Amino acid sequence: MKLATYKDGSRDGQLVVVSRDLATAHYATGIAARLQQALDDWNFISPQLQDLYDALNQGKARHAFPFDATRCMAPLPRAYQWADGSAYLNHVALVRQARGAEVPASFHTDPLMYQGGSDDFLGPRDPVVVAREEWGIDFESEVVVVTGDVKMGASPEQALEGVRLVMLANDVSLRNLIPDELAKGFGFLQSKPATAFSPVAVTVDELGDAWRGGRVHLTLQTSWNGRKVGLCDAGEDMSFHFGQLIAHLCKTRNVRAGSIVGSGTVSNKGVEGKGGRMEWPKGYGCIAEKRAMETLQDGKPSTEFMKFGDTVRIEMKGKDGHSVFGAIDQEIVPLHAPA
Amino acid sequence: MKLATYKDGSRDGQLVVVSRDLATAHYATGIAARLQQALDDWNFISPQLQDLYDALNQGKARHAFPFDATRCMAPLPRAYQWADGSAYLNHVALVRQARGAEVPASFHTDPLMYQGGSDDFLGPRDPVVVAREEWGIDFESEVVVVTGDVKMGASPEQALEGVRLVMLANDVSLRNLIPDELAKGFGFLQSKPATAFSPVAVTVDELGDAWRGGRVHLTLQTSWNGRKVGLCDAGEDMSFHFGQLIAHLCKTRNVRAGSIVGSGTVSNKGVEGKGGRMEWPKGYGCIAEKRAMETLQDGKPSTEFMKFGDTVRIEMKGKDGHSVFGAIDQEIVPLHAPA
Repeated sequence: MKLATYKDGSRDGQLVVVSRDLATAHYATGIAARLQQALDDWNFISPQLQDLYDALNQGKARHAFPFDATRCMAPLPRAYQWADGSAYLNHVALVRQARGAEVPASFHTDPLMYQGGSDDFLGPRDPVVVAREEWGIDFESEVVVVTGDVKMGASPEQALEGVRLVMLANDVSLRNLIPDELAKGFGFLQSKPATAFSPVAVTVDELGDAWRGGRVHLTLQTSWNGRKVGLCDAGEDMSFHFGQLIAHLCKTRNVRAGSIVGSGTVSNKGVEGKGGRMEWPKGYGCIAEKRAMETLQDGKPSTEFMKFGDTVRIEMKGKDGHSVFGAIDQEIVPLHAPA
Repeated sequence: MKLATYKDGSRDGQLVVVSRDLATAHYATGIAARLQQALDDWNFISPQLQDLYDALNQGKARHAFPFDATRCMAPLPRAYQWADGSAYLNHVALVRQARGAEVPASFHTDPLMYQGGSDDFLGPRDPVVVAREEWGIDFESEVVVVTGDVKMGASPEQALEGVRLVMLANDVSLRNLIPDELAKGFGFLQSKPATAFSPVAVTVDELGDAWRGGRVHLTLQTSWNGRKVGLCDAGEDMSFHFGQLIAHLCKTRNVRAGSIVGSGTVSNKGVEGKGGRMEWPKGYGCIAEKRAMETLQDGKPSTEFMKFGDTVRIEMKGKDGHSVFGAIDQEIVPLHAPA
C-alpha cells in the first residue's frame, strides 16, 4: 500500500492512504491519524489500512479525493531516528577523492553511516531554505526505509524483516561546511540541514520483484533545473543491502519503530570510454559526484553547486513506467529574502 | 515545576507532575498525557501543569501518590532529536589526549557536537544492556536541556530563550569502539548506545540563581559501585553555555520542540599539586577522564572500564541539599545472560 501525510497545520499532519496510481487518496481517520501511530502498532493497524487501500484502488472508497503531492508533508514529518548509510562504494570513492580523503580500508565489511537530525523534515515540495549560497548547496538522491522495532544484535536477515516502508529522500548537504566539520571528528551536524522525503511511502510488496536482496532494483531519476542529470540504478551497485545497514545500526542498541535508514547517494560504477577516459553514463545523484568525475577527467571540477532559485526533482518509476513514490521537487530559497 | 513520565507499558508512558521535594506525584491526565504533547503546545499547556504543581506542593492535589523513581521512564522516552555537545574544554583535552587525538584549534569558538540516537532512551533505573564487556563500557555524567521551537539562525541569546526543561543524562559510551568509528569520519554511532535520563525534568525557575549565564551552577555527583568518584561543578568550566550550544545546532536548520541538547561530560580543570604533579580534586564524570588523568600522572592508565554488575549513580543536589532531578542509578547487564 501507499501512505502519505497531508498538511493540516499540525506538527504531524494527517495520515492518508493513496491509490497505487497516485490519482486518489482517502483520510485514514478512524484507523490512525498519524503514520507514527501506525508504525507503533503495525500488526494491528496495517491490515486496516490495507483494506482501505484495496477499496481505494477498486474505486470503492466512499470519501476519496484527488491526491495532490503539493499538500504533502514528509510521510513522517518528524521521526525518532534518521540514520543515513553510504552504501554505494562508487559514491564514497568519488566524493572522498574530491575532498582529498581516503576510502576507509574497512569499507567493504563495515558500512559508513551517520546519525542525522529528525525533528524537522521537509515535505516533497517544500523549499530548501539556506542562509548562504556559498555554503555549497547540494542535493543527494537516496532510497530510504522506515523500520519497525529491531532488537539489539539482530542479524542482517532479521533486520531486513523489520523494513515496513520504502521512500525516496533528498538528503540536502552543505558541501563547503563538510571539511571543517568532519575534521573536528564528531561527524555531520551543520553540514546536513533538513532532509526532504517523497510524497508517498510504500510497502515493499508494491515494488514486486524490484525489491530483492534488500535492495530496490529500479532507476532513480534526478533532474536539476529541469535537466535530467541522473538515471541511476539503485540496486546493482549497492554494496550493503538495507538489512545490513539496519544491522549495523542496531549492533549496540535497539532500533525502534519509525526509524528511517538511508542508502546514501545512489551511484553507479564508471566505465572506461574512448581513449581510456572514465565515463559515468548513468549520470549522478549529487553535484559533489559530478565535480569528482570532472576532477578525474579534467583535473578540476567545473560544475558549481546550487544557486538560489535552482530546482531539483527526484523520482523513481516502476517497470510499468508509473511513478512509484511521487516526485520530490524543491526550490532553493534564501533564509532572508534579498532587500 | 518538575515533570516525569511513568511506565504504563506504552512507548511514551504517562506524564506526571512531581512535587518539589520529589515526595509525591500526580498524573497530568486531562492536561497532557505525554511530555512531548506539553512541549508541542507549551504556552497553552505549561500554565495548567504549573497549577497542578502548585496544588501538589501545597498538599492540595486530590489524587497525589508517593513518587517512585523506579517507575520512571526517561522524561521523554523517545525524542525527535538528541544532540550532545562537548562544552567542557577540560574533558575534551583529557579524553583526546587519552586516545592520541588533537584538540581542534577551533574549539574555543566552535563547539564540538554530535547527533545521537533518540528513538530508545533508558529510564533512570533501567539497566544498561551491553553485549560485550570488552567494548569498554563507560558512563558520562551530563546536564541536558529540552528545547521548544528555535528558528534557524537564532542567536545564542534567542536560543537560550528556547530552553524549556533541564535534566541529567548518562550518555553511555563504548570507549573501545570509538577510535575505529571516528576514524571513518562520520562520527559516533555504534559507540553510543542508548542514553539514560534523570527521573525528573525541571523548569529553569526551579534552579533559582543556580541557573545563570545559560549554565547550571551546581555540583554533579557521580558514584561508581557506591563510591563517589566525581563532585564536579557544572557551571564554572562550561566553555559554551546552552544558548551557544543550541545556536550551533540551529545554524543551518530549525530546531523543533522536544529537542534534547547536552553539555557533554561535566568536567573541571586540574590544579598543580605538590611537586608540580597535576591533580583533579573534584574527580571525574567518566572513566575515560580518569584514565587520561592517570596517563598524565603516571604515564599509563590503571583504572579499567565498567564490568557487568557494576553500577553508576548520577545526581545533583540544590543549595538546600535536596536532590533536584532525582538520581540516575543503573547497573551494567549483559545482553545475553551467561549460560
